[in-house]
Amino acid sequence: MQLGVIGLGRMGRIVVDRLLAADHDVVAFDIDDDAVDAAADAGARPADSIAALAEKLDSEDGKHVWLMVPAGDPVDAALEELEPHLESDDVVVDGGNSYFEDSVRRAESCPAAYLDCGTSGGPAGAELGFSLMVGGPEAAYERLTPAFDAVATGPNGHERLGPAGSGHYVKMIHNGVEYALMQAYGEGFELLHEGRYDLDLESVASVWNNGSVIRSWLLELCEEAFREEGNDLGTVADRVEGGSTGTWTVQEGLEQEVPLPLIYTALGERFGSRADDGRFSRRLASRLRYGFGRHDVPRRE
Amino acid sequence: MQLGVIGLGRMGRIVVDRLLAADHDVVAFDIDDDAVDAAADAGARPADSIAALAEKLDSEDGKHVWLMVPAGDPVDAALEELEPHLESDDVVVDGGNSYFEDSVRRAESCPAAYLDCGTSGGPAGAELGFSLMVGGPEAAYERLTPAFDAVATGPNGHERLGPAGSGHYVKMIHNGVEYALMQAYGEGFELLHEGRYDLDLESVASVWNNGSVIRSWLLELCEEAFREEGNDLGTVADRVEGGSTGTWTVQEGLEQEVPLPLIYTALGERFGSRADDGRFSRRLASRLRYGFGRHDVPRRE
Amino acid sequence: MQLGVIGLGRMGRIVVDRLLAADHDVVAFDIDDDAVDAAADAGARPADSIAALAEKLDSEDGKHVWLMVPAGDPVDAALEELEPHLESDDVVVDGGNSYFEDSVRRAESCPAAYLDCGTSGGPAGAELGFSLMVGGPEAAYERLTPAFDAVATGPNGHERLGPAGSGHYVKMIHNGVEYALMQAYGEGFELLHEGRYDLDLESVASVWNNGSVIRSWLLELCEEAFREEGNDLGTVADRVEGGSTGTWTVQEGLEQEVPLPLIYTALGERFGSRADDGRFSRRLASRLRYGFGRHDVPRRE
Amino acid sequence: MQLGVIGLGRMGRIVVDRLLAADHDVVAFDIDDDAVDAAADAGARPADSIAALAEKLDSEDGKHVWLMVPAGDPVDAALEELEPHLESDDVVVDGGNSYFEDSVRRAESCPAAYLDCGTSGGPAGAELGFSLMVGGPEAAYERLTPAFDAVATGPNGHERLGPAGSGHYVKMIHNGVEYALMQAYGEGFELLHEGRYDLDLESVASVWNNGSVIRSWLLELCEEAFREEGNDLGTVADRVEGGSTGTWTVQEGLEQEVPLPLIYTALGERFGSRADDGRFSRRLASRLRYGFGRHDVPRRE
Repeated sequence: MQLGVIGLGRMGRIVVDRLLAADHDVVAFDIDDDAVDAAADAGARPADSIAALAEKLDSEDGKHVWLMVPAGDPVDAALEELEPHLESDDVVVDGGNSYFEDSVRRAESCPAAYLDCGTSGGPAGAELGFSLMVGGPEAAYERLTPAFDAVATGPNGHERLGPAGSGHYVKMIHNGVEYALMQAYGEGFELLHEGRYDLDLESVASVWNNGSVIRSWLLELCEEAFREEGNDLGTVADRVEGGSTGTWTVQEGLEQEVPLPLIYTALGERFGSRADDGRFSRRLASRLRYGFGRHDVPRRE
Repeated sequence: MQLGVIGLGRMGRIVVDRLLAADHDVVAFDIDDDAVDAAADAGARPADSIAALAEKLDSEDGKHVWLMVPAGDPVDAALEELEPHLESDDVVVDGGNSYFEDSVRRAESCPAAYLDCGTSGGPAGAELGFSLMVGGPEAAYERLTPAFDAVATGPNGHERLGPAGSGHYVKMIHNGVEYALMQAYGEGFELLHEGRYDLDLESVASVWNNGSVIRSWLLELCEEAFREEGNDLGTVADRVEGGSTGTWTVQEGLEQEVPLPLIYTALGERFGSRADDGRFSRRLASRLRYGFGRHDVPRRE
Repeated sequence: MQLGVIGLGRMGRIVVDRLLAADHDVVAFDIDDDAVDAAADAGARPADSIAALAEKLDSEDGKHVWLMVPAGDPVDAALEELEPHLESDDVVVDGGNSYFEDSVRRAESCPAAYLDCGTSGGPAGAELGFSLMVGGPEAAYERLTPAFDAVATGPNGHERLGPAGSGHYVKMIHNGVEYALMQAYGEGFELLHEGRYDLDLESVASVWNNGSVIRSWLLELCEEAFREEGNDLGTVADRVEGGSTGTWTVQEGLEQEVPLPLIYTALGERFGSRADDGRFSRRLASRLRYGFGRHDVPRRE
Repeated sequence: MQLGVIGLGRMGRIVVDRLLAADHDVVAFDIDDDAVDAAADAGARPADSIAALAEKLDSEDGKHVWLMVPAGDPVDAALEELEPHLESDDVVVDGGNSYFEDSVRRAESCPAAYLDCGTSGGPAGAELGFSLMVGGPEAAYERLTPAFDAVATGPNGHERLGPAGSGHYVKMIHNGVEYALMQAYGEGFELLHEGRYDLDLESVASVWNNGSVIRSWLLELCEEAFREEGNDLGTVADRVEGGSTGTWTVQEGLEQEVPLPLIYTALGERFGSRADDGRFSRRLASRLRYGFGRHDVPRRE
C-alpha cells in the first residue's frame, strides 16, 4: 500500500525500510534533506515538503501518513502543515512517544482518522520489527494492517488496544515498567559486583538468559553491556538521562491513586544521578547527626 | 554417565527425566516410595535408601549424586546418610535453593567434591532445560558437564561461576531480581487495569511480548495468567507467599551496604499482603489524622 | 484591628476566637447560619452575606478579610462575591489549603492585596495558636501583623516567606513531610507491636517524648492514640483517607526532578489502604509464582 | 546513691555530671586517664581500673555500675573485668547502643542483675536529661530509680519496658525511626531548596517549629543547621555515615515480616551517599538505554 512517512530519524528510517522491504510504496519527508536523499536511495519517493508529500499520496484508497517525529511541538507543527491536505477517509499514524492526552486532542481535531501508535523495540527493531500499541478507530487500524504487519514483528507485534489515546497510554506505562526492570537488574548486578565473590557478570547474565525465570531482552542487553564495556562497566558514568514517559506514568498513578513504588524509585534514581551538587536531603541528614549526636560532619573540600 | 538423584519432587523428577533422555544411567531415591516407583517406570534404577543408592553407583569414574531436596535440614539429613559412602573423587551436586553459606559449610565438610548449583526455570524446564548456576571445584564441574548439558538448556544453560557457594549466591540474587521484576510488571498492569481505558490485558501482554523492550519470559507468564484467569485475575487473592531467598538477598545487601530499594519494596509487598489484621502503621496514621486534624477515623465493624 | 472572617468551620471558628481574644473587631460570615449565630454569641459581629460582611468592614485602614473555606471552588466562589467590594488598599488572606498556583492566579486578579497563608496546627491550635506560612506583598503582611500575632502561636508562629503563592507552596511541602513522618512513626510502632516483646506502646511513646531525639508533637499524638484506643488501636481501620496535598508535593517533586521516596511511599500507603479489592499488582505476582514454579495460588472464597 | 560509671566519653561524662548534680556518690573509670582526672575534678571519685572501681563501691545496698562504652567488644571486655567482683544483689546498667540479643545473652551470664538501657538525646541531654528505655528485672529497675531520675529528663524520661533486651530493642527501633524522620525532613527541605521560590530555610523551619503539625526536636536541629551552615548548607558533604542500628532495625523487620520501606529507604540513602565510585545499578541502567535505544551514554572523564 501507499504510505507517506514524515520524520526520517533513526526510528522513522526503520519504518521506511521495513515498509519498502514489504513492497509498500513509500513517500518520505524530513526537514533534513540528507535524510530524504538517503531514504530515496533506499527506494522511497522523496518529498521536499509536507505539502509535496501529501500531493504524491495519490492512491484511491486515501492518504496514509506515518508521523515519526519527536513528541510535543514537532507533532503539532507537522499536523498543521499536513491537515489542510487531509480528508475524512485518510489516516494519520503518530508513531512517536506523544503524551496520550495530546493524542486524544489531536484525534479530535484531525480531519482524517487518527491512530496513536506506541512503538517499542528501538533500533534493534530494524531487523526484528517493533511492538506497536495502537489506539484509535477500528476501521483505520484495519485499513493500515498491511503497513503494521510490515513495521511490527509480524501480525502479533501490533494490536489495536482501544480508542484514541490508548496506544500512547499503554506505551507510556510500558516505559514506566521499563525503568523499573532496568533498575531491578541493576540492583542485582550491583550486589553481585560489590558482593562476596569475584564474578564475571557477562557469564552470569549469559547463564540467566538460558532458561532462567528472569530471562529477557533487557537481560540480553545487560550481557552485551558487560561484554562490550567490561565487568566494571568501564567509563560509563553514574548519570541516567531521560525520564519524561516515566514521569507521566507516575503522574497517571497519582491521578488513578495507584501506588507505583518501583517505577517511582527507578525514576527517582535517575533524578538523583543528575544531582550534580549532591543530594540536599542527605547533606541535611549528615548535619543533623552532628546536631543531635555531635558526630563528625564530612565536609567538601 | 552414571548419576544418583536424591529427591524426586517436581524438580528432581525433571532432572531424572532429562538425564534419562540423554541416555545417562540414573539411580533414583526419594522418601516417598511412589515417587521412586514412578521414576523406575520412567527408566531409572530405583533405590530404597540412600545407602542402597550409593551402593548402586558403581562406576569406576566415581559416584555422582544430585540432591534435589528442600533447602535447610533435608539437605543436611541427606548428606548425613550419604557421606559415609563418599570418597574424595566422588561429586555431590546440591541443585536446591540452599543458603550459600550453608553450601560453603557443606563443601568444607563433605568428603567428596561439592558443587552448589542454583537451578532456575521451574517446571517449564522439563522441556526447555534449566539455567544452572554452579559453584565449586572446577574439576568436579568439568566431570559433570555431560549431566549439566542434559539438565540445562544446553551448553549455555550452565556455568561454573566461582568457588563454593557462588552458585547459590548468584541464584539467591537471581530470585531477588525476580521479585522486583514481578512487582514491576504488576505495577504496570495494575495501572492499566485501574486506568482510563478498558483494556484487554492479555492483548497488551501479547503485543509487548512481540518486539517490545520489556519482553521477557515473565511477561509471557503474565499473558498466560490473563488468558487463564481472565482480565480481572478472577479469584486470585491478594496474598503473595514465599520470600526466603528475597529476604536473604536483602540481608546480603545490608551486609554489603548496597541499597536494593526495588527488591526490598517487592519483598515488603509480600509481607504486607499477608498482614491479615491490616497494617498497624496505616491504622496509626489514620488515627493521627484525627489527632491533629479531627478527621473522621474509619472504623472496623 | 478590624477583620472579616469568611468560613466558620472548625478552623475558621478558631481564627475568630483567637482574634476576639486579642480584642480585634471581627465580622463573621458562613453559609451556615448556625455557625454565624455561634460566632456572634462568641462576640463577633454577624453578617448574613459576603456583601453584608464587606459593608460592615468600615475601618479607615481598609478592609481585611480572612478566608477559611475549603480549597478549590469555594475559594473562587467567595472571591467572586467579595471582589466587587474590594479596593487596592484592602487585604485578603486565604488561610485554607489552596493549591499554590491557584493562589498565584488569584493574587494576580484580586483587586486587593492578596496573602496566601498556609495554616498548620489543626484544632489544637485553638489554644496554642497556629503556624502561619504567608506569601504575598510585604506591606500587606506588615499591615496584618496584629491579626497574625493573634492567630499564630505568637510573633514566631507566622512569617512572610516570599511572594504570592509561597505560603501555600511551603504548606504543601509541610504536608508532604507530615505524611512521611506519620508513616515513619507507624513503621516503628508496627515493628514494636509485631515484634519480640510484649510492649506497652503508650509507655514507649511517653518515654520517647521525654528527651529522645525523635520527640515531636506527632509522637505526643501517638501517645494519645494508644492511651485512647488501646495498645492494639482497637477498632481503627486500615484505611487512610486524604492525600491531595501529598499528591501535589509529589507532583512538584516530579516537576523539579527532586526524588521524594519517603513522601511518595507514605502517599502510596494511603492509596493502597483504600484498594478495597486488593492490590492487582500483588494478585498478579501471586499468579506468576504459579506460572513459573507451580506454587499454590491463594484464592478468594 | 552510690554508682560506678565505666566509660567517660561524651555520653558517659554526662551521666556522671547529672548523677553528681543530684548528689549521688559517683566512682568513675575510663581507659583514658585524662577523662578520669576530668571526672574527678567535677566531683567523682576516680578509679584507675575496673577492679579499683568495684572495690570503691562499698555501699551496703550493693554495687551499682553504669556502663557507657561503645557497643560490641568493649562491653564484653568491661564485663569480663567487672563480673568477678559482682554478686547477685548488684546491678549493672548498659547505657550504650548494644544489640538487644547481646544484652539478652549478657543478662543471662551476668552474676548481677542486668539492665539494658537505651539512651537517647545526645549531648543535648547534658542539660535536659536523656530518654532512657530500660529492659530487665523490675526490682533492679526500682532500685536504680534515683539514678534514672537524675540521668533522665525526670521521672517521665525513663521507663522499664519489659524483660532483658527490651530496652535496647526499643532503642534500636527508635533509631530506625530517627533515620526515616531525618530523611523525611531532608526531602521537604530539598524540594524547598530546589523549588520555585527563593526561600530562607531557617525561617521556614522556625515558623514550622512554632505551632505546626510537624514541629519536633529534629526540626529545631534543622533550624539550627541552616542558621549555622547557611541556606545552602555550606560545605556539608553529601555523605551520611553511621547505620548500624538502622541495619539492625531492618533485619528485625525481615525477621518479623514487617515492611519498613521508609526506614529502609533512609538507610539505603546513607549507603548510596558512600558509593564513591557511583552507583553500579545506575551505570548499568544508563548503558542499557544505549542498548535498546542508542541513547548517548554519559562517560567519566
